This record gives sequence, structure tokens and C-alpha cells, in this order.
Amino acid sequence: MTHHKTPEQATVPANPALFLNPLIIADAVRRALDEDLGRAGDITTLATIPARARAVAVIAARQPGIVSGLPVAVAAFHAYDPEVTLTSKLADGDPLSPGEVVARIEGPARSVLSAERVALNFMGRMSGIATLTSTFVKRVAGTRARIVCTRKTTPGMRAFEKYAVRCGGGFNHRFGLDDAVLIKDNHIAVAGGVAQALRAAKAAVGHLVKVEIEVDTLDQLDEVIAEGADVVLLDNMGPDLLAEAVRRIAGRMATEASGGINLDTVRAAAESGVDMISVGALTHSAPVLDLGLDIAID
Amino acid sequence: MTHHKTPEQATVPANPALFLNPLIIADAVRRALDEDLGRAGDITTLATIPARARAVAVIAARQPGIVSGLPVAVAAFHAYDPEVTLTSKLADGDPLSPGEVVARIEGPARSVLSAERVALNFMGRMSGIATLTSTFVKRVAGTRARIVCTRKTTPGMRAFEKYAVRCGGGFNHRFGLDDAVLIKDNHIAVAGGVAQALRAAKAAVGHLVKVEIEVDTLDQLDEVIAEGADVVLLDNMGPDLLAEAVRRIAGRMATEASGGINLDTVRAAAESGVDMISVGALTHSAPVLDLGLDIAID
Amino acid sequence: MTHHKTPEQATVPANPALFLNPLIIADAVRRALDEDLGRAGDITTLATIPARARAVAVIAARQPGIVSGLPVAVAAFHAYDPEVTLTSKLADGDPLSPGEVVARIEGPARSVLSAERVALNFMGRMSGIATLTSTFVKRVAGTRARIVCTRKTTPGMRAFEKYAVRCGGGFNHRFGLDDAVLIKDNHIAVAGGVAQALRAAKAAVGHLVKVEIEVDTLDQLDEVIAEGADVVLLDNMGPDLLAEAVRRIAGRMATEASGGINLDTVRAAAESGVDMISVGALTHSAPVLDLGLDIAID
Amino acid sequence: MTHHKTPEQATVPANPALFLNPLIIADAVRRALDEDLGRAGDITTLATIPARARAVAVIAARQPGIVSGLPVAVAAFHAYDPEVTLTSKLADGDPLSPGEVVARIEGPARSVLSAERVALNFMGRMSGIATLTSTFVKRVAGTRARIVCTRKTTPGMRAFEKYAVRCGGGFNHRFGLDDAVLIKDNHIAVAGGVAQALRAAKAAVGHLVKVEIEVDTLDQLDEVIAEGADVVLLDNMGPDLLAEAVRRIAGRMATEASGGINLDTVRAAAESGVDMISVGALTHSAPVLDLGLDIAID
Amino acid sequence: MTHHKTPEQATVPANPALFLNPLIIADAVRRALDEDLGRAGDITTLATIPARARAVAVIAARQPGIVSGLPVAVAAFHAYDPEVTLTSKLADGDPLSPGEVVARIEGPARSVLSAERVALNFMGRMSGIATLTSTFVKRVAGTRARIVCTRKTTPGMRAFEKYAVRCGGGFNHRFGLDDAVLIKDNHIAVAGGVAQALRAAKAAVGHLVKVEIEVDTLDQLDEVIAEGADVVLLDNMGPDLLAEAVRRIAGRMATEASGGINLDTVRAAAESGVDMISVGALTHSAPVLDLGLDIAID
Amino acid sequence: MTHHKTPEQATVPANPALFLNPLIIADAVRRALDEDLGRAGDITTLATIPARARAVAVIAARQPGIVSGLPVAVAAFHAYDPEVTLTSKLADGDPLSPGEVVARIEGPARSVLSAERVALNFMGRMSGIATLTSTFVKRVAGTRARIVCTRKTTPGMRAFEKYAVRCGGGFNHRFGLDDAVLIKDNHIAVAGGVAQALRAAKAAVGHLVKVEIEVDTLDQLDEVIAEGADVVLLDNMGPDLLAEAVRRIAGRMATEASGGINLDTVRAAAESGVDMISVGALTHSAPVLDLGLDIAID
Repeated sequence: MTHHKTPEQATVPANPALFLNPLIIADAVRRALDEDLGRAGDITTLATIPARARAVAVIAARQPGIVSGLPVAVAAFHAYDPEVTLTSKLADGDPLSPGEVVARIEGPARSVLSAERVALNFMGRMSGIATLTSTFVKRVAGTRARIVCTRKTTPGMRAFEKYAVRCGGGFNHRFGLDDAVLIKDNHIAVAGGVAQALRAAKAAVGHLVKVEIEVDTLDQLDEVIAEGADVVLLDNMGPDLLAEAVRRIAGRMATEASGGINLDTVRAAAESGVDMISVGALTHSAPVLDLGLDIAID
Repeated sequence: MTHHKTPEQATVPANPALFLNPLIIADAVRRALDEDLGRAGDITTLATIPARARAVAVIAARQPGIVSGLPVAVAAFHAYDPEVTLTSKLADGDPLSPGEVVARIEGPARSVLSAERVALNFMGRMSGIATLTSTFVKRVAGTRARIVCTRKTTPGMRAFEKYAVRCGGGFNHRFGLDDAVLIKDNHIAVAGGVAQALRAAKAAVGHLVKVEIEVDTLDQLDEVIAEGADVVLLDNMGPDLLAEAVRRIAGRMATEASGGINLDTVRAAAESGVDMISVGALTHSAPVLDLGLDIAID
Repeated sequence: MTHHKTPEQATVPANPALFLNPLIIADAVRRALDEDLGRAGDITTLATIPARARAVAVIAARQPGIVSGLPVAVAAFHAYDPEVTLTSKLADGDPLSPGEVVARIEGPARSVLSAERVALNFMGRMSGIATLTSTFVKRVAGTRARIVCTRKTTPGMRAFEKYAVRCGGGFNHRFGLDDAVLIKDNHIAVAGGVAQALRAAKAAVGHLVKVEIEVDTLDQLDEVIAEGADVVLLDNMGPDLLAEAVRRIAGRMATEASGGINLDTVRAAAESGVDMISVGALTHSAPVLDLGLDIAID
Repeated sequence: MTHHKTPEQATVPANPALFLNPLIIADAVRRALDEDLGRAGDITTLATIPARARAVAVIAARQPGIVSGLPVAVAAFHAYDPEVTLTSKLADGDPLSPGEVVARIEGPARSVLSAERVALNFMGRMSGIATLTSTFVKRVAGTRARIVCTRKTTPGMRAFEKYAVRCGGGFNHRFGLDDAVLIKDNHIAVAGGVAQALRAAKAAVGHLVKVEIEVDTLDQLDEVIAEGADVVLLDNMGPDLLAEAVRRIAGRMATEASGGINLDTVRAAAESGVDMISVGALTHSAPVLDLGLDIAID
Repeated sequence: MTHHKTPEQATVPANPALFLNPLIIADAVRRALDEDLGRAGDITTLATIPARARAVAVIAARQPGIVSGLPVAVAAFHAYDPEVTLTSKLADGDPLSPGEVVARIEGPARSVLSAERVALNFMGRMSGIATLTSTFVKRVAGTRARIVCTRKTTPGMRAFEKYAVRCGGGFNHRFGLDDAVLIKDNHIAVAGGVAQALRAAKAAVGHLVKVEIEVDTLDQLDEVIAEGADVVLLDNMGPDLLAEAVRRIAGRMATEASGGINLDTVRAAAESGVDMISVGALTHSAPVLDLGLDIAID
Repeated sequence: MTHHKTPEQATVPANPALFLNPLIIADAVRRALDEDLGRAGDITTLATIPARARAVAVIAARQPGIVSGLPVAVAAFHAYDPEVTLTSKLADGDPLSPGEVVARIEGPARSVLSAERVALNFMGRMSGIATLTSTFVKRVAGTRARIVCTRKTTPGMRAFEKYAVRCGGGFNHRFGLDDAVLIKDNHIAVAGGVAQALRAAKAAVGHLVKVEIEVDTLDQLDEVIAEGADVVLLDNMGPDLLAEAVRRIAGRMATEASGGINLDTVRAAAESGVDMISVGALTHSAPVLDLGLDIAID
């Protein structure tokens, strides 16, 4: 089984750091196959397709978008039957035109049909996220703003959804609660104030952990500037307030705008000069990208 | 830990058969907690919130919709810390007004904050699906059509998403490839025709397995009527063709309309007299329902 | 590793729909190997057989019967050591004569010896079930009755035991509680009667779920006929009562006889004209088929 | 949840060392529940039994026998719903009369019905093994022979089946390949003879590992006596040969008779004076003990 | 089951951020119990201790040291038998005198004896690491240097060993390859130099990921200073070179000394003014702390 | 992937019975990789090393010692990426000189770097144990004493640590609580004396289970001699007492010395004539063997 792309065929340079842990893929694919095959398997296919029939199939895009999930589709077919092969001229992150062939699949017809839905469910969701992310990224073209995701992901799918955001040109926020500090209003309230919360966090964590803090007002921001942090999250501020915040910070910290930002408002937020704009909808509300599998059985 | 609803407080009768296997909940909640807590846990909370602090929190709806996922939220908090309790006056399937309190959570503040995102990620996604389903169901009110989901679900989340469809008033199609036969065009082509495929399927399966078959044309439909099946799926037919199909079938089989049906077209499809209308978007493209957690820490 | 059977060597056409999910096989084989190898492995073999010794072994039938479990034996040897190969001229469902070679195994002698018992434990039990099923099937030859199994299976072995029943020429009843409705006396009593129970079930389930109901008397049967169901289970009725029930039903529902049927009584039950006869003993009390492994080590 | 037996009610002293690891029970029960409940659960019960209905049920013996599996039944109901309780006046190993109540179960009716089959599948199989074992044990009463089981167990069920043998008054042979050495003919052949095989084994293993060796002839036995072993397995010898073997060994090693021993031949074998008689059929061919659950739902 | 410490009894303030994910504890404890109990459990205890015997036991220190692992011991006893309770006047991180009672355990005698070794194996290893860490921490008292661990941990025990380092007063380096960038010589060589590697890393990672780089020479250090990083690792430098490095860096980055530092050399390294000193031996070579369990059985 | 050693290159005959269950290796390696790779993988390598770069690496000894863990290292690289190969001229149990090459690794550079630490963490720990064991074994050369380990192992690592002891020339004590009886003082006290405890144990266990008993005094020893056991553990006795004990036992049981024996005292204990000396420090306090990976990336 191969997943190959020759460099001259790529129209957009894929991100060299795009990575999805193969062990995580294996586990998720296995769970999805169990979920779909149940105890008795694909009883329709078993009753109507001979064991020796071979299939050639293509996955095609029914809409424009950004592809994501090719290695997961490879793993899904392979986990069910190592004789199925998937090849593609594309790499995750490449743009798709309507009708474009995403991948070609060959193997025992029963196996292709039995694993098809699992492969498409991963790729459709991941490509949907990549496509929505890409739309946001294009809206802020020319500004310094990176589009970043949040922890508002589908349970069990975080690694896949974070990866899909990268495929769409976005960047990742925290993968979980443990890889950076993000102090929110409740933490500030209990800790006794911005300065106390920041000091407590900096004292507790290791030297490779960054500290971000959320502020709602410019007064809070001034406290953060005085105490110091790695990143400040400017929550629910309009473009003017964002611009003023960026001006006050003057490069001493990275800046993230957050809160209800959509495709209509993202450009204005980006023009405020913030470094990052985080958008929960990338992972929690992206519609699927419509991919279909067309098959010829022999 | 309790999840209680007094009957007089329910404004809509909950479906008595609504059920989500507690063992499936336990596994999914555990995976989601692992995914979010990682190796070191909620380092922000650990650094800023004392171990003895207590919290009272409410989950509130920021939009109108249908609630789904309360037992999953109970399980999420409980799995992390059995001292956290979640109570609610609502049951899954109940409507929500903007600002309405969905549930009240009490317990150690660190535990409430550490498990919050997992609970909300489940409930937001499930309530989003229930809400979209409910909108489709309302559109077909007064017709005989049931709204049903498909196997286009998020990998690892099928049981949750099928349940959310039920919460929204919809019905479930197959849970997997093994619980009913659904003969599609590829099966027909390889089997040698509609009649051959139906006969092969009926010969192979047990006496408690239903057989559904997909047709694209009225000619194919006539073949199915001649051979007999439990359900016929009328694929990509407009309202007039659907009505003619329903007329020809004359109650001898259940009828399902499928293919690109959306909120604009669903009413006309339903008025054709079909028994079911299947909508993949219920599970693959429903936006999240916006739920927030407001917390008071003591 | 291959498991091959040339068509001309098969004396009985294998059921084309015979299927055992390879992922379920992999998990069960792994558990069985862990159970037998423990923490220190096959210490006898390690102490007495050199690491480089090769073995050729045959699994032979010590009794007549029906073979079942060849793909599981392949998986058992392969999971322990991918260098071990198992080949066979037979397919699951084929008849065995005493002394007949079932399979030939080659590979490192230590690996063949270490995985032998696991492979034989699966095949012996599965072939025992297939053999007993086949005996029942032969007894009802010439009638319309199918022999079907029940949910009285060994915990953790359901998929294997249901498959073995198919290998013996039987058919499967429900794989679990979720793939069809089977209303029994307790459900009827609580629901308030046959008609109420049937209506509740039909209202609750999806369009691809069949409804079966158990009756003990002809009066109950008349209620079922009036209300309608997919299948009626005629519980603990003698041949005459069964025949009268079949007459009354007149083809409007499928019919299943159940309750204490054994090899002495099954023929009379079948001659009543019922469609199915369910026999719990197929899976809960079939004796093992005696298979032995003879080995030559080099 | 309790499983209680008052001492005065026990008619046979239970073996104080009877033990089944609760962690192994938990895993096996969980797998069996998953297997039976599938993705959608007990859809019949959900449709027909109200959520608030309570049930009182008894498990009763339909045949005489020996009970085994009470702690597993407790765990099965508890794992599905901690509100279900099981109480019993019996302990594993106690005799059962036909009609005798084995256990009483109380709790939510849906939960009792949903977990019933899993509990009965464990108890029926385990009690069947205990009952068959007990029959063998009674046949050899008054001799020195212990009845012991083999590794011919159902995959995944070894701990349960070995425990059931103990409940029936038998003893356990190896739990797996790693807890003792058992040298068979293949090992002897490759090692170069009885003495060489014994020396290799004794040199390789730790000081707490016993060494048993299988012999087919008295000549081989003489070699074993010369070299020394902990136990000698006398394979496929008739009563006279067994008696001669016992005479020659003269107490220097423990003795085990094995090979095709059944209820008709076991007494004669025991009267030869051997210490153990191993019987594969205890675990591979014991019929289920017929246990039924009678329920009253309120 | 409780694990309680009254504040006035603590002689050293425990780190408020000390945390070990209870879900990770549950999994590791389960694996360790399986490993020790095997298939048949604690056969010595079952044979010699009556089921109703109760035990009171104390875990006592046989050496001075720092305690670590109390919540793991609680979980080990509880997982095997929820009736066993463990109480302690100490908290993880507290110092121990020889003979001091670490914890008191009460419950069924069989359960206390069966889970004892698992609890002690966790606590002995964790307390050994805490004790060694504490010794290093004391050696650098009065300097600015923090003692930090590495990824040289026992497979499967990383969370426990990192936590034990915290109990001993140390700090944690990366928990894994994914939570910070650490550029070593191979990365530099392939990337084409210090500046190229740093730029590639900063471009690829998210805004909450810190970048550390290892240097062997002052020339390399100058390149790092020019390009900028969050932390610089000064590898295998003696005290004078470290001091010069710290001088050049002048607070623009955090500094970490690494490479063969032991109890004899750590003070001199710390006096160079570095922020962190990483010591692999904390986790890979700490001897166990000798803890014993003394038991009274009734 | 191969792990090959030509016979002429081995300077010490490897123990032919050295064995580590490949299924146990697979599970432990998987857990360790998950632990190190986390959700996002080796982000440093992904950012700085091109996907197509190849690496050749050698694992070299930085100290003298005994190698252990080669098959685990093979499995670690292979589990992450089947394209990585590891070859070695050595076998586990072979001695290492400082600087000696232990293994050569080739494959995609990213994969070699990502799995390196897991492979080294296993090999370093296992080789450390083998090396310490070997030192003890050499100290008792010429006596009859075997060096044996205990159950004081790292949780989750028992099979690996017991195997490493074998690599160092030691032997294994019990693998767990279930594979032999070891009666300690608490068991004796509750059972009512040495004779009662021994009789209870012998009555309860199967015929392939050995019985060992711990004694503190010569009086207790006399009781054991009178009653009979397979092995006697002489706890905390000095050389003279051990010699007297051995004299009294006169070969009727195997003898094990235990309790605080270290490299200074082990020779005198061995010269008492005991059969085994058990040393907990082999597994609980062995320092890591320093192994390094040197890599060339192309």
C-alpha cells in the first residue's frame, strides 16, 4: 500500500511539519471500523458480491475545497484488508476542484465496499475543517494574523481535527490542558488578580511551558503588561479596541484575538495587528466536504 | 451524582425509548478526558485554584435549540471526580430558550474546571444535531414522513450522534453495516440485476434482518415491486417522481427518499407520501449548539 | 501465510456469505494467546526445543464432523509468529472424515508448539458447534425449516459461535439485544397485552428493525395475527399445536418454533411447517470436535 | 450489591481457597455486555418497559447440579447498573435441586432484563462444568485420585472454567504454558531422549517450577524414574498398566493418568492408585446447566 | 477510602500544584495488579488466611527520605478491593524519618496481602526518586538553579516519575516529544546551522510552544543569541564555561546546564548562575526507598 | 527488520531458554511510544528534518556491561515505522566493552529520531539490571548458589526485568502471586503454625505448584523439615546460621537465602551452601547502563 505524490504535481507546497501520529491513526481507524462493521460485518456485500471480485474505485471531490485525511484513508482500508491499496497524486493540504480525483483504490471488492464509509467519514470531516480553515486564512491574507483553532473539538477526534486545521493553513492552539497555561477570568478571580495569577502560574510550571492570559479590558491588559506573560488573549474586543491593545503591548507579548469571530468580522480583527485569531467554529461547526466513492467491480 | 427531572417540569414528553448504553458512554468519556488532560493535567487550574476550593456552575444555552447529552455530561464529570454532581430540570430532547439553565454542577473547583470542556464538547455537538434534526422534523409536520439519519457520522461518535437524532425527534437508519441489508447500485450491478440481488440477500440473511434496496428509476422500482423487499430507497428523485413511486408501491413496502434533501426541499419531498426521508447533514454538518459554563468558585 | 482451497477439492459448496470479521478474530486470538502464554511463555518448549528447529505439523480429525475455524487458526499462529504458515485444502463448512487432514502448518518449531493449543481450542469448539448444527440440519432435510441458534452463547465467543452455526448449515437469530425486537412474556405483561406491546415496539424502532413476538397459546397467537408482526415465536408447543398455529398464520408472518427441541423431537417440529426452529444447545452444549496436531520437528 | 450466604444454610463446606480474580471478572463481564448490548442496547425492553418499573427476579435451577458463577452474575448486573442487587443463600460449589432458587435479583426492570442473558450465560456454563466435574469426583470417591482439568478450555474463559472445576470438587492442572513444565513426546524426541529432556528442563527453569513428563510405555517410565521428575503423566494406559506403573514409581513422583478417560472408565483408572486423573471433557464438552430467570415486574 | 492530612501535621508545605491524573493512576495500577495476580491470584493467602480475617497494617520507612506515591497506594488497594482503606498523616513531598509510619491500611486481610506488593512497588520507586531529587535540590540551595528531570524514564512510568521529581522539590522538563521543541546537534546539522534550525522551528510550531536549543560551544551560543530562543541548553560545559555562557546570555534566554552532572559536581554548576540543571539519574538510576509493610491479622 | 547474530561472534553462549513474549513486548512498546509522542509527535524533528532524509545510527555502550533488550529495541523502531531496521552482532546476555557498537539502525531519519528514546529507555534499564545481576553472579562463582530476583519490580515492567535478570546469568523467582506458594510469617501466624500453614497450602493447590516457606529461626526450620516443603527461605540469617540450616536440611529441600544481601555479603552467604540467594536490588535499584545513539543523517 502506497500513498505517493510526485513533487511536480503538487500545486501548493505542503507544510513540511504536517504530521499525524500513525499510532493514533491506527487506534481511531480500528474503533471506526468496529463501529461500522459490528458483529456480523457488511452483510449486504457478503450476500451480493463474490469473494473473488476485484474493485477499482476513485474518491472524487463533489465540491471545491482542501484535502485532508489521505493517510487516514490509507490506514482504514489497510486495517480491514492489507490487500487494498490507495494511491493519490495529491497530498494533504492540496486544493481540490469539483470532480477532481482525490485517490484511487484497488483491491478485493468486498473489502473496498466494507471500509469505504469509514474512510470517507474521516476524509469528509477532515477536509471540511481544512476547507473552512483555508477560507478564514484567505480572508486575512496580507495581515500578520495566523488563524488558530481551539479545544472545542469532537471528542476522540482532536488529533485529526488539529491536523486538518494545519492542512487548511491554520495553526494550532493548545492540544490539551497540559501543554500550556491559559489563565481565564475564573482563575484570575480565585487567584486574587491578574498579577497574582500570573505569578502563581510562572512559579508552578516548568521552563518549557508558556503562559497565556485572557483579558477583557484595557485595564486588565495594563496589569498583564506590568507583570509579563508570553501571550495575551484579547477576548471579545472589537477592531478598535484590538488595535489599541496591540499598540499598548508594543511587541512585548504575542497577541491573540478571540470571541465570536466569523468570516464577516475576521478581516477587521486581523487588520488590528494581532498575531493570532482563534476560531472555535473551525472544528466545532465546519460542514463536511462532499466526497464520493465511484467504484467499478470486476 | 444525580440527574433528575421531575415530570411536571418537562414541557415536552421525552421519548421513552431514548437510550444511550452507559458502557459506551464510559469509554468515550474516558477517551475524551485522556485527550484533553494529557500527561500533566489542567496545569493552569492546578497553579491558580486551591485544592480545597468549591465551585457551583451552570451550563446555560446561548441559543435556542434542543438539549442532548445530559447523561454524557454527568459521566464526564463523574469519571474525573466522583464528588462532582450534575443536576438538571431538563431531559434530553427538551427545548431550550436562549439563556436557559441546562444543568447545575457542584463540586471541587479544580475538578469542575478540568472536566468542563469535555462535557461541553459532547453536549454542544449532540445538542447541535438534535436541534438541526428538530428543525427538519418541524418542516414535515403533518405529513407521514419520518426524518432519519445515515451512517455519515463522526468516527467514534456514532452511538452519540444517532441518539442525538432521536432527541431531536428523528429516527435512526442502520447503526452499522451488519444490522440490515441495503442494496445499492454496485451490489445490483455485480449481482446481475435487481431481482438477483434481492434473491441473494434474502437467501443469505437471518429471519430478523430486513432488506432495503436503492432505486434510481421507476423501471428499477417495478422490478423491486415484482420481487419484493422490506423497504425501497428512492434515490435523488424530485417530488413528482417520488409521488409516482409511492403510488406504484401502494403500501407494499416502506419508502425512503434520499439524496441532497435540505431544509428548503424537505417539505415537498415529504408531501409525496414517503415514509422516511434520510438526511446525511443531520450528523455530518450540524453546527454546534452554543452552550456556556458560568462558574462561581468559593 | 495463506489459507487456500482449490474449488475442485471442495465436496460441498461453502456458503458464499460465511464471514467472520478479521478484527474480531485478531482481538480474540490475542486474548487467548495471552491467557495461555502468561508472563513467561511456553517454558517447556523453550527448555527443550532449539530456537532454530523447524516443524511441519498437520491438524487431523479424530472424528467425523464439519470443519469450522480455519481463518482463526491461521490468525492464531500468525499473531504469535508471522513466519508460521497454515494451508488447507478445505474451507470452513466442509465435512471431515476420521483421520482426514484439516490443515498443514509449517514454521519455527517453538512457535508451532506455543500457539498449537490456542488454535485447537478455537477450532475444536467451533467445529463441534458446526457438527452438531449439521446433524440438526440433516434431521429436518426436506422440510422448509431452518435451524437457528440463540443468544445462549459462551461469553466473548458469540461471533465465533454464530459463524460456526452457519458453517454447519444453520442460520443466525439475533446477534444481540439491539438488532431486532423480540417481545417475550414479561414485556407483554408490563406493556398491558400483546397488542399494546406490538404497537409500542413498532412505534419506537427504526424502519429496518424487525419485530418478533413470543406466544404460548393460540389465543395469544390470534392477537398477534390481528395486530401484525414480522415473526412469531411459538414457544413450547408440540407438533400438533405448531401445525395448527402455522395453519392460522397462513403465511402472514414468519414462524419460529422454540423450547426444548432436541435431535429426537426436531423432525416432528419441522414437519409442522414452521419456518425456523431455534435450538440453544447448538451453542451452549455442543461437545468439542476432537482434532489433533501431529508434528514433525527438524 | 451483596452476595451473602449464612453459614448454617450451606449443606456442603465450600472450598476456602475458591477464588476468581475480581479484575478478570470485570473485564470478561464488560466484554460480554458489549457483545450482547451492541450499539443500541436492549431495544425490546426500552420500547415496552417503562424506565421507572422495578423488578424482582429469581434465578432457579431447572436441573440438579452444582452452582458456579455467583460472583460473576453479581458483577454482570452491577456493571450494567449499580442499582441492581443480587443475593443468594448459596455459595459457589453448593449442590442444587431442581426448582431450587439460586439467587434473587432486584432493581430497575430495564436493567435486570438487559443484563439477564449475560449473567445466565456465565452461570449456566460454569455450573455445567462444576456439575460434570462433581460427577467425575463422585465416581472416584474412596480412591486417592483427584480429578483435574486440562488446558482444553474455551478461549477467553480459562480462569472461569478452571474455577468451575474447583467448584465441582476437582483440581487444576496448569493455568497456562508458563506455570509448570510438561514434557511431551515431541519435546522428548527433539531433546534426544527422556533423560536429556528432563535435564534440559531442570537446568532452565526457576526453583519454584515443577517438571512433569509424559510417558507412553513402561520403558520410558523407567527412564523417568532413573532421572527423576516431580510428576509423571501416564498417557493412554489401561488400568493394569497404570497399576504396574504406580507400583514401579513407588511414591517417588506424583502420578497422573490421562487420555480418553470418561465416566465409564474413570473408576477403574482411579483404582490403579494414581494421584490424578485429567479429563479434557470437563471444560471442552460439559453441557450447560439449565438455569432460568423468572421475573416479576412492578 | 480516604487519604487525609491535617495541615498542622505537615512539616514542609506540599507543592500546591502537585498532581497526578487519577485516570493515569487507575490504568497503571490495574496493569500492575494484573501482572502480580496473574490468572489464579494470591494462592498462598487464599490457602492460609480465612476469607473473614481482617488486617491492620502500617507502611513504615526503613530509611530517611521523601514520600511519594500515597494516592497511588490508595488506588492500588482500592482497585483490588474497595473495602480496604488507607489513611496517612503525611502528604506526598513530606520528609520521612527511619521507622516513621507512612500510612495505615485496614480491611480484609486477604485483600491487604494481595495488593501489598503492588502498592509498595509504586511507592518505593517513587519515593526513591523523590529522595534523590531532594538531595540534589539541597545541594544547590541558595543558588537560582532548579533541578529538572529528563525523558530518561522507565517505560510506562513517566507520569509517576515526573510527579516524584516534583515531590522531591525538582521541576519537570518536557513530558514528551510534543510539548516543546528541543533542537539538538543532529537537528542543527541537517537543518544547515543554528539559525536555520531555529527559524524552521519557530515557523512550524504554534504560539504556545517554547523553543530550546542545545549548544556545545560558545560560538554556537553566540549564534543562538543572535537568532533568539526561549531556552538554551549548555551541554557538557564545566563551571567556568557555564559562567561565561550565562554572562554572555545576560538574561535574554533561560539557561539549562546538562551532561553528566552528579551530586559532586552539581553545586559548582549551580554557582555558574544557570537557571536549570537537568539530571537524567533522577529517574533512570534512583535506588528504591526501603518501605516495609507490617501487618496484624485478626 | 532483522536481528541477527552469527554464532562465531558470540563470546558467551546465550541462554537457549531466554525468552520474552512478543505480545508483551508489543504492548509495552506501544504504551511507551504513546507516552513519549503524545498527541503531536516529535515536533522538533518534524520542523527541522525533511521527510525524505535517511539516517544510519549506532547504539554504543558508554560503559562495560551486559546487553539486554535487543528484541525490544527492534520492536520499538518497528512499531513506529516498519521501514526502520535494527541489526546487531550481539545477542542479549553478551558482554559489552566501553565504546562497543550494540546495534546498527537504518531508516527514515524522522522515524529513527522519534523512536530513539523509547528504545534506549528499555535497553538502558534492562542492560543495567543484567549488568548488576552479572556482577552478583560473578561474586558467587564456584559455589552452588544461583542468584535470583524477587517481585520487587517496576510496575508494568516485570516480564522485562525478569528477563534481564536471566540475561545477566541469574534465575527467576515467582513471576507473580499465582505461580507458586510462598508462606511468610503472617501466613504462619494466622494459620496457627508452620505445620498447619504447610498442610493448608499443600491441600489447596494443584499438583504442579511448589510450596516454599520462610523461616527466621532454626526452631522454625525444624518444624518445616518435619512437615516437608519444596523450598525453604532462610530469612535474614548470617553465614554461620545459613550453614547450620543447610546442614540440618541435608538436601531434603531446596534452600534460599534472603534479606539484605549485597555485593559485600553475597559471597559469604553463597559459601554456606545454599541453593539460591535472592536479591531485590537486582530489579529495584539497578542503575541504568549508559547507552548512546550516534546518528548520521543524509
